[in-house]
Amino acid sequence: MPLRTPKSYIESLRKLNLEVYMFGKRVENPVDDPIIRPSLSSVVMTYALAQDPQYEDIMTATSSLTGKKINRFTHLHQSEEDLIKKVKMLRLLGQKTGACFQRCVGMDAFNAVYSTTFEIDGKYGTSYHKNFVEFLKYVQEEDLVVDGAMTDPKGNRGLAPSQQADPDLFLRIVERRKDGVVVRGAKAHQTGMVNSHEVLVMPTIAMKEEDRDYAIAFSVPSDAPGIKIIYGRQSCDTRKLEKGLLDRGNPKFGGHEALVVFEDVFVPKDRIFMCGEYDFAGMLVERFAGYHRQSYGGCKVGVGDVLIGATALIAEYNGAAKASHVKDKIIEMTHLNETLYSCGIACSCEGHKTSAGNYEIDMLLANVCKQNVTRFPYEIARLAEDIAGGVFVTLPSEEDLKSPEIGKYVEKYFKGVDGVSTIDRFKVLRLIENMTLGTAAVGYRTESMHGAGSPQAQRIMIARQSNLNSKKQLAKDILDIDK
Amino acid sequence: MPLRTPKSYIESLRKLNLEVYMFGKRVENPVDDPIIRPSLSSVVMTYALAQDPQYEDIMTATSSLTGKKINRFTHLHQSEEDLIKKVKMLRLLGQKTGACFQRCVGMDAFNAVYSTTFEIDGKYGTSYHKNFVEFLKYVQEEDLVVDGAMTDPKGNRGLAPSQQADPDLFLRIVERRKDGVVVRGAKAHQTGMVNSHEVLVMPTIAMKEEDRDYAIAFSVPSDAPGIKIIYGRQSCDTRKLEKGLLDRGNPKFGGHEALVVFEDVFVPKDRIFMCGEYDFAGMLVERFAGYHRQSYGGCKVGVGDVLIGATALIAEYNGAAKASHVKDKIIEMTHLNETLYSCGIACSCEGHKTSAGNYEIDMLLANVCKQNVTRFPYEIARLAEDIAGGVFVTLPSEEDLKSPEIGKYVEKYFKGVDGVSTIDRFKVLRLIENMTLGTAAVGYRTESMHGAGSPQAQRIMIARQSNLNSKKQLAKDILDIDK
Amino acid sequence: MPLRTPKSYIESLRKLNLEVYMFGKRVENPVDDPIIRPSLSSVVMTYALAQDPQYEDIMTATSSLTGKKINRFTHLHQSEEDLIKKVKMLRLLGQKTGACFQRCVGMDAFNAVYSTTFEIDGKYGTSYHKNFVEFLKYVQEEDLVVDGAMTDPKGNRGLAPSQQADPDLFLRIVERRKDGVVVRGAKAHQTGMVNSHEVLVMPTIAMKEEDRDYAIAFSVPSDAPGIKIIYGRQSCDTRKLEKGLLDRGNPKFGGHEALVVFEDVFVPKDRIFMCGEYDFAGMLVERFAGYHRQSYGGCKVGVGDVLIGATALIAEYNGAAKASHVKDKIIEMTHLNETLYSCGIACSCEGHKTSAGNYEIDMLLANVCKQNVTRFPYEIARLAEDIAGGVFVTLPSEEDLKSPEIGKYVEKYFKGVDGVSTIDRFKVLRLIENMTLGTAAVGYRTESMHGAGSPQAQRIMIARQSNLNSKKQLAKDILDIDK
Amino acid sequence: MPLRTPKSYIESLRKLNLEVYMFGKRVENPVDDPIIRPSLSSVVMTYALAQDPQYEDIMTATSSLTGKKINRFTHLHQSEEDLIKKVKMLRLLGQKTGACFQRCVGMDAFNAVYSTTFEIDGKYGTSYHKNFVEFLKYVQEEDLVVDGAMTDPKGNRGLAPSQQADPDLFLRIVERRKDGVVVRGAKAHQTGMVNSHEVLVMPTIAMKEEDRDYAIAFSVPSDAPGIKIIYGRQSCDTRKLEKGLLDRGNPKFGGHEALVVFEDVFVPKDRIFMCGEYDFAGMLVERFAGYHRQSYGGCKVGVGDVLIGATALIAEYNGAAKASHVKDKIIEMTHLNETLYSCGIACSCEGHKTSAGNYEIDMLLANVCKQNVTRFPYEIARLAEDIAGGVFVTLPSEEDLKSPEIGKYVEKYFKGVDGVSTIDRFKVLRLIENMTLGTAAVGYRTESMHGAGSPQAQRIMIARQSNLNSKKQLAKDILDIDK
Repeated sequence: MPLRTPKSYIESLRKLNLEVYMFGKRVENPVDDPIIRPSLSSVVMTYALAQDPQYEDIMTATSSLTGKKINRFTHLHQSEEDLIKKVKMLRLLGQKTGACFQRCVGMDAFNAVYSTTFEIDGKYGTSYHKNFVEFLKYVQEEDLVVDGAMTDPKGNRGLAPSQQADPDLFLRIVERRKDGVVVRGAKAHQTGMVNSHEVLVMPTIAMKEEDRDYAIAFSVPSDAPGIKIIYGRQSCDTRKLEKGLLDRGNPKFGGHEALVVFEDVFVPKDRIFMCGEYDFAGMLVERFAGYHRQSYGGCKVGVGDVLIGATALIAEYNGAAKASHVKDKIIEMTHLNETLYSCGIACSCEGHKTSAGNYEIDMLLANVCKQNVTRFPYEIARLAEDIAGGVFVTLPSEEDLKSPEIGKYVEKYFKGVDGVSTIDRFKVLRLIENMTLGTAAVGYRTESMHGAGSPQAQRIMIARQSNLNSKKQLAKDILDIDK
Repeated sequence: MPLRTPKSYIESLRKLNLEVYMFGKRVENPVDDPIIRPSLSSVVMTYALAQDPQYEDIMTATSSLTGKKINRFTHLHQSEEDLIKKVKMLRLLGQKTGACFQRCVGMDAFNAVYSTTFEIDGKYGTSYHKNFVEFLKYVQEEDLVVDGAMTDPKGNRGLAPSQQADPDLFLRIVERRKDGVVVRGAKAHQTGMVNSHEVLVMPTIAMKEEDRDYAIAFSVPSDAPGIKIIYGRQSCDTRKLEKGLLDRGNPKFGGHEALVVFEDVFVPKDRIFMCGEYDFAGMLVERFAGYHRQSYGGCKVGVGDVLIGATALIAEYNGAAKASHVKDKIIEMTHLNETLYSCGIACSCEGHKTSAGNYEIDMLLANVCKQNVTRFPYEIARLAEDIAGGVFVTLPSEEDLKSPEIGKYVEKYFKGVDGVSTIDRFKVLRLIENMTLGTAAVGYRTESMHGAGSPQAQRIMIARQSNLNSKKQLAKDILDIDK
Repeated sequence: MPLRTPKSYIESLRKLNLEVYMFGKRVENPVDDPIIRPSLSSVVMTYALAQDPQYEDIMTATSSLTGKKINRFTHLHQSEEDLIKKVKMLRLLGQKTGACFQRCVGMDAFNAVYSTTFEIDGKYGTSYHKNFVEFLKYVQEEDLVVDGAMTDPKGNRGLAPSQQADPDLFLRIVERRKDGVVVRGAKAHQTGMVNSHEVLVMPTIAMKEEDRDYAIAFSVPSDAPGIKIIYGRQSCDTRKLEKGLLDRGNPKFGGHEALVVFEDVFVPKDRIFMCGEYDFAGMLVERFAGYHRQSYGGCKVGVGDVLIGATALIAEYNGAAKASHVKDKIIEMTHLNETLYSCGIACSCEGHKTSAGNYEIDMLLANVCKQNVTRFPYEIARLAEDIAGGVFVTLPSEEDLKSPEIGKYVEKYFKGVDGVSTIDRFKVLRLIENMTLGTAAVGYRTESMHGAGSPQAQRIMIARQSNLNSKKQLAKDILDIDK
Repeated sequence: MPLRTPKSYIESLRKLNLEVYMFGKRVENPVDDPIIRPSLSSVVMTYALAQDPQYEDIMTATSSLTGKKINRFTHLHQSEEDLIKKVKMLRLLGQKTGACFQRCVGMDAFNAVYSTTFEIDGKYGTSYHKNFVEFLKYVQEEDLVVDGAMTDPKGNRGLAPSQQADPDLFLRIVERRKDGVVVRGAKAHQTGMVNSHEVLVMPTIAMKEEDRDYAIAFSVPSDAPGIKIIYGRQSCDTRKLEKGLLDRGNPKFGGHEALVVFEDVFVPKDRIFMCGEYDFAGMLVERFAGYHRQSYGGCKVGVGDVLIGATALIAEYNGAAKASHVKDKIIEMTHLNETLYSCGIACSCEGHKTSAGNYEIDMLLANVCKQNVTRFPYEIARLAEDIAGGVFVTLPSEEDLKSPEIGKYVEKYFKGVDGVSTIDRFKVLRLIENMTLGTAAVGYRTESMHGAGSPQAQRIMIARQSNLNSKKQLAKDILDIDK
């Protein structure tokens, strides 16, 4: 199959029999659900741009497995250049949606599972790598969206999987059968699950022997029996149920997260990519996290571009664009945003080939990248709130603006500079609200904090990768210590 | 009348005939409106605590006008100690509500108008001060809530009031009559207007002669003919319309802002406190802003205490309270919060008597206080988001938790440490969401940024108050320059 | 004796027989030593200003012990107002010297030892408090400078005093005699020791029973037999040996630190203030540290004023004073500096009476104050370096400026705006160098970091004082948890 | 000639007849001058490492002009990979010296002048590019050190070159002759001038027609008649005149800056690279600054590595290495340092080919890189000061340590953990002092601030390069504004 079109993608989703719950009820038709739809539209953009000749180089690649042209979101990176193009692709998607477009978790999982299974097989003589390659060929051929699922509920954060009061708080094997395994547990904060064809499950932390049953990686269709998806609420989510578009902020795009419950789900043998090799759980986690920390140096930068643009617009609409402090704050926003991008590019440019043959980012720099992402979007958002003025959180509703009775007052008193309509000012203010306090803030702020691992996780990796002894030696050499 | 009780306050509000609009429609009964009610409950707390003997010293004062015991929210500060007690009162209210309790704007306006009218009368022989004293006696006697209204819509921020395309974008006198004046315009972001008995209007910037018609200060009842209140939307506001309490985050308290339109409102002569004395507009603005910038060193600190407490709770519920990085982040939150408090106390302690006799904060330090408030709550919120974990923005709804079908999964997989119920964990997570992204974030973050003037306004005042020449002289003295 | 004059102070120092070492040699005449002299001049300022009627209120006090007028540096604080005046006195001294004036450590030790000895006596029936009162009367009467000595060398920071390989790495009792005790050990970083008449020794950390011999407090004359003072080097110290004044930066004032060795020093019984009561070591440390952390909210602010003034001057001399970014940076410097001052004032204003009767600062806020001091002076210095331009570290020497051969080029090419002499520009640039990289940087930067305890010490105290449980309860009350 | 050896380099310097002044006197033998020598040793390292096979790939390149193997410091970058290798080379040199090694300014000037002269010739038909190529072949062949000289004294920063009271405050043509021109003026802060064979002069700002005489670029030997070098003082410079090595901090390496006066210096025609084409002055400045801003993402990172290593060492020597806050601070130092490196790599990786054929960095990212360099080294230094403890600024002198009389006390009381000698602890502490307050602080802090342009210069470039309109369009597209 050639690259899937947006239309074909939406149709393919309709064919799934997902078990999705929201507000305590089963969602019969997720594709057309008004709360979910904007997140789907973001994923659609990954298909739409791949069809656009001007983005061909960045959005598509040649499969290392089949030689065919594929969507880059299903690609195994074959060079540092591929790693860089990935970052640029994610920035582009962020720019076009101003939201989380969800498809990167699958791509990052592919690359991590590919190289890790190769190494497991090398040590244990298993055939996970072959399983995975077959699976990925299918994904590339069908141009699928795959949810890369890592984070377990974790219960008491101070205890290992096997020490939890409830053994299911980390996903685990509950039955081993000849033709496969049965698993139970859940994956939390699953980005884009409702818009995915498959879910690719990985363990969430390094493990010891007693956690063997938790060392499991596999893929199953998103509508496999026993999978239940419980949709997460977002700030301002129900504004999407209101009749107008204005108060949504971003009238088109969004993201979503969900709890995915695996209630005794069967996994056939050929879709298992790790099964008890607990000593490789840490490697898989680090690699997936590493790729995903790189991702944030692209996607959040693109979203940041939209927020910077909206902020520059509102400064203009308010008649404040020439104030020196306003200009300086926009420079600072740009500076911070481009610093994030620099980190995304650098960890790509300094990448290396894995023993399996695909390319991996520089681990130290990818963690540095993500650590900055846990900080700078917050400051960028703060500066946006500064320049927007308080009005972006005290605006009345769209219905007030359109009310026959009081609309004229809203129209009159929320006017900015001459030549710009009040409604355009409303639009930009609501977009800024959306990105700093509303549905997109979940992605731009909190996901920047916790996605691909919370800040402390990166600090541990930075410590581990920083080669402190070699730095001590540099000082000793200059000082003639130990000579 | 003795101190008004909560019950009496609510009854008094029912007697008002406010013209409030929300979602394009007139709100017939604002007191019982589910969106508005939490903000009313916050104001109620200012009455309730004043009845509580343990808070008597902090919540009440002896009137300098009548010698009677009054609610401190209607007091003219008579000493540095009064200024300090004000800060402690506001911190207490923030601690009890975790929200904006709205009543401070009136108190700050009283103190600013009191001293400014004294000086206007001194220069021009007018009788504004007497008018104001009579008004304030009435407020103290009736124990009223007064909205201190300063911020105009401002249209093009680069232009003065009289230069705007629409002359009404700053509130102005449109008719001068024997018995009073008629005004037109609006005041934006009016905190607590719907819960107020009166609205005390002041100009919003320093003015020149050509802006004479804009130099107007007065008070009228909140339901005076021609006043239309258009209620501002907040992030997550409609969660208050949902049946459960859980998803609200803060199930009891909140704040609100509104656009208050003055459509040719008549102001009787004895309630006018400035009328054309444009050369005093700047003084009134600076003084009100100064008091209000001090206020933030109390109220936001109290709200910060709640957020710190919620963060410490969730760390405990997650089993993460003993991690050294978690402890260190809570220390940092406390450190920042107490720095804000220190600034609130210091500008009070360094206060001075005005020529009218009431006490004014130190202007430099009050501006320094507020400038820190435009920064630290954002960092405190960021750290809260860090410690909470991503789950506070991906939690499913209360209806999911209570669903017969899937409630058991929600219950099971969102459990933290043993011994803490999932519902308590939900509560704390939703409170953190409320304060960082939801209705209270409007108050804790954006109002911290823009309330009492945006950051740049404080910087201008800091420059003006910093006495740079004396600092240059210190350096010259040490260096024997110019000797 | 009335307040001691500068002249009398200097004479009194000449009478001491201090054993001071510098560059490996005994300093025969410390008073006239060119390296030491600027630090003496700073202390002299504490006597000179006390003679000046305009500073009488701030520089002097009425002794609570004798009713006589004394220098405030020897005072026991009798009210919150006294605590506030202390902060203002220290800011004043910082402004007049641009350096560390050393005398506050004694004052802070007096107040801590006074209240702690009162409590030891209360528990153990000892007579330390009486001993101390007699000592302090003598200090007040003679208007002496006393070095408050706390910090031990500490060896391995991971071990307690009694666990060290060398038992002397914390100062200890080596012999108990009828008429007193003999001590051995050292105190590091002793500020102003060479300019002091007495040294008041205190333990440096909380202790357990096995450290009993280390729980010792006393005072002896600075020239007591066995005391050896080894002078610490400072950045750029030997510029004071060069013939010109210009390259020193601050031509008049400075500070110093020294290692003070106690080589079997005898302490007579009536000068002992703690001797084995290890359970009070922690209290004494916390109280001294608390007062001293408050001090930094005064002295460093005064030094900061000089640096802000110098920075504003150089902006003017460079012709850059009107650039918006320059103005904004000076605002930021001022903002940070006044935030420190606010913390100094707030912990004073929130002070309380000890059981002994003198006043103590609020411990939480004093630690918050110092924590900010470990950060903001660094940022203020960074901004000064920004505005100064690189020239302040690349200037040629005074001898170049005055050279017959090349002086004309130096004169010509280091000229700034018309109307300001090159030599004045040199002076200001060298002062900025002095405060950011030179002798005064030791005080303004590193002492801000470590004086009165390193940053982590404050964080531990903030954690201990923050009453986290009450904050958790605030959140629980709002959420109806545990009801 | 093959790559020059260290020995040959030093000999070549001896042959120069430089006119250097320090402390008001002519320096007869700069090569052996104790103040200057450490800076020479840093430059020597650029020759030594180029001889080392393990660094061949990074330290050498193939000349695009001659095809010969050359030192990379004389190379015209031929690819993004070359730009990246440059950054790595500079980091390596920083690691080996812990100081400024000076040779990058020439390299950056070569690349900027190469492409700019190509464009001038294209517009005006001049032959500057040919002149420059010949010059550079000579430099490559002889493996020379060239000082890239840009910064003029600038006098009143608010005035253009031709508006200054003294016309020489920017370097200018004072005479046009058939065989060349005569120039007068000076270049300030010239890094490494005394260790250079040639000085390559460029204008320092964009110019207008009236500044035509100031639009001049050329190269002359560093000992050309009329060139006078006035050596800049550094913090703690004279410690290098003391007999021991210990108090220097860095016993081997350093940097230097000097004022270079051009007193009517003749420039032969074939060494002129711009002469009046004022419209190209801005381009040359931007390009040189761009390359040099990239450089800081390498050299300062290498120096930072040494400081991080020294800090980790002192933590170990103090027995504090396992404290969680110490580990966390070292992580933060590493994180900040690697963020700088990421920016250096990213602006290289995103480079592009100029019309002349050499490669230029991405201008936006290079400015972002430098902007971070104006901040992070200060924070890294602050954290180093935190972990070192106050002792690094209160240590006595080496002579005290070695004194027969008191050396034993110094030895005893400055001991850290068992197994580490006091002298090694001294060494590391002195190195930290050197890098944060001493000679190397000039390079690590202030040069990070001002080298390659002060912070505001980068902000202006970031504004210019940020393409704000395209960002506004992104927001408009999402919001359907202007459709």
